[in-house]
Amino acid sequence: MAISTRLTERLRIRHPIISAPMAFAAGGRLASAVSAAGGLGLIGGGYGDREWLEQQLALVEPSSFGCGFITWSLAQRPELLDLVLTHRPRAILLSFGNPAPFVDAIKDAGAFLICQVQTRRDAEHAVDCGADVIVAQGAEAGGHGEARATFTLVPEVADLIDKRAPDTLLCAAGGIADGRGLAAALMLGADGVLVGSRLWATQDANVSPRMHAAAIQASGDDTIRSQVMDLARKLDWPTRYTARVLRNAYIARWHGREAELMNVADEEAAKYRKAWADGDPDGSNTFVGEATGLIFDIPLASDVIARMVEDAERRLKRQVGR
Amino acid sequence: MAISTRLTERLRIRHPIISAPMAFAAGGRLASAVSAAGGLGLIGGGYGDREWLEQQLALVEPSSFGCGFITWSLAQRPELLDLVLTHRPRAILLSFGNPAPFVDAIKDAGAFLICQVQTRRDAEHAVDCGADVIVAQGAEAGGHGEARATFTLVPEVADLIDKRAPDTLLCAAGGIADGRGLAAALMLGADGVLVGSRLWATQDANVSPRMHAAAIQASGDDTIRSQVMDLARKLDWPTRYTARVLRNAYIARWHGREAELMNVADEEAAKYRKAWADGDPDGSNTFVGEATGLIFDIPLASDVIARMVEDAERRLKRQVGR
Repeated sequence: MAISTRLTERLRIRHPIISAPMAFAAGGRLASAVSAAGGLGLIGGGYGDREWLEQQLALVEPSSFGCGFITWSLAQRPELLDLVLTHRPRAILLSFGNPAPFVDAIKDAGAFLICQVQTRRDAEHAVDCGADVIVAQGAEAGGHGEARATFTLVPEVADLIDKRAPDTLLCAAGGIADGRGLAAALMLGADGVLVGSRLWATQDANVSPRMHAAAIQASGDDTIRSQVMDLARKLDWPTRYTARVLRNAYIARWHGREAELMNVADEEAAKYRKAWADGDPDGSNTFVGEATGLIFDIPLASDVIARMVEDAERRLKRQVGR
Repeated sequence: MAISTRLTERLRIRHPIISAPMAFAAGGRLASAVSAAGGLGLIGGGYGDREWLEQQLALVEPSSFGCGFITWSLAQRPELLDLVLTHRPRAILLSFGNPAPFVDAIKDAGAFLICQVQTRRDAEHAVDCGADVIVAQGAEAGGHGEARATFTLVPEVADLIDKRAPDTLLCAAGGIADGRGLAAALMLGADGVLVGSRLWATQDANVSPRMHAAAIQASGDDTIRSQVMDLARKLDWPTRYTARVLRNAYIARWHGREAELMNVADEEAAKYRKAWADGDPDGSNTFVGEATGLIFDIPLASDVIARMVEDAERRLKRQVGR
C-alpha cells in the first residue's frame, strides 16, 4: 500500500504523514517511530527546556526527524534552533508567531521550512517567507490553535498557493485520525497531513496512561477550546490562540472565570503543575482534539500509520469503482 | 459525469447534493433549480411566515422538492408542517430542536425524515427518532450552527450509524462549496452533502446583490459566529446556537456588547429589519459560511452542481491513478 503525493516525492518519505510536534507528548521516541514507519516524525520543541530537548535529540537519527517550535517561545530562546540544527533535522516547523526571523538559519542548514498557519492571512505571510510546506491547521485540532476549520482552510490555502507559489506544498492538520481523514485531506487539495491526537494516543508518545484512558472514552463533543490552562501554567500565549482539551473538572471550575483564576495564579499554577506531573486528567488538562471521538485504542505509532494509509487507499479506490 | 452513492439510489436523485433550507434565501426558485439540476432542493421554512411559504410552495413541483424547518420555531406553529405535507414534499429536514413530535406526521405522509445535527449526542437522538437521513453540520457552516467541525463530526456520526442504524444515510454540511468538498465528504464517510453558502451565492437564491458582492470579496477569515443578529431580530434562538456571518460594521459595533444591545433592543430591532429589507450588508448581516473564501462568482445553481460533481469525480480518479 502506498499513497504517492508531491510531499512523499519532495521529502522522500513513504507516506504523506508528518507527526505534530506536540509539546511534552512528541519526544524523540515518537518522532523516531513515525519516521521508521514511513512518515516524518517531529519532536515538539516545547517551551524552551534545553535539557529535555537534548535528551530527545539523542533518540533520533540525523536527517530522519524534524523539530517543531512555538514561534513566540523560540523568539525568547533562539539558541534552541541552533541546537536542533546541529543535529541535521530534515525539517523545522514553526507555528504561533512570525517565522521571518528564523527563515535564513533554517534554509542555510538545508532543512525544509514548514510553517503552520491557522488563517488564510497567515498563509499569505508564510508564502512571503518562502515556506517549503504550509500546514493549514483547523480549530478541531487538539492543543493550541485558532478558529478556522480544516474543511475550508485547506482548500482556501490551496487556492492561494496555486496562485502565488505553486511549488509550495500543503498539509492539512486538525481532525485527521484515520484513513478517512487522510483521503479527505488529499481531496481538499492537500499533499499530505499533520497528525496530532491520533499519534498522541500511541504507546510511543509521552502521555500519562490516565489521560490516554480519558481520551478513549470521550466524544469530540467532550472537547473545548479554552485559555485557562495557559493562565494556570503562566505561559505567555498571545490571546488569539486557545487550546483544545477534554472538558473536565478543571474546565468546569475555571473556564469563563479567567479573571478569578488570574487572582490566585501563583497558588493554582503550583497545583496545576503538580497535577500535570502526576498525569492527573482532572486536576490538569488532557490535550486532545475533536478526533478523540475517533480514537479507541493506544497502539504503536507504526500501526496507526499503516492503518491510515491502507484505509485511505481502499476508500479512494472504492469510491471511484462504484 | 455522475457520482453514485446510497443517497442517490435511495432518494432517486442524479447527484448526492441537497440544498440547505436557508431561511429567506432558499425559496421555491432555488429548490426547483437544484432539483432540476439533479440534486434535491429544499425550501427554507424559516420563522413561520405562512404567506411567504405558500408563495414558495407554488413554485415547486410535488415530489421534487423538500422543506426544512427550524424545529423550535416549528413547534410554535406546527400547522406549517401540515401545509407543506399537503404539497407532497420528498423530504422534510428538521434542525435546531427536538424532532420527535413531528416524526409520525412526516413518515405518515411518505416523506423522508432528514435530521440535521450539530453534535454526536444529537445524532444519537436522531437515530432514536428513526431519521432516514442524518445531516452532520459543522461549525464552518453559514447561518446557525454550533461548535463541532465537519471534518471530525462526519466520521464520528458515520461510526455511530454503522453501529446503531446502518440503513440510515449520512450527509455532511458546513464548508462544502466545490468538488473538493464533495469528494472529501464522501471520503469522510458521508453518502452525500448539504450545500448552503455556495447555493446561497447563485442567481436562484433570494439574496441582496450587495450581500452577494460582500461575500465574493471575503475570505473565510472574515466570518464569525455570533448571537447579535438574533438579539437584534428578537428571535428566540436557544443559546447553544450561534450564526456565522461576515464580520462587518454591525458585528464590530455589537459583538461582545450583547447586554448593551438588549437594553436598546426595540430601537435596534427596527433599524436591523429596515437594513435587512434594504439588503444592506453593513446595517444587518450577510449569512454565509467559511466557504465564502471559495466563492468568486454568482452563477446559476445548475452550474454550481455541474461543476461540483465534475470536479469531485476528476479528483477522485486522479488520486487513485497516481
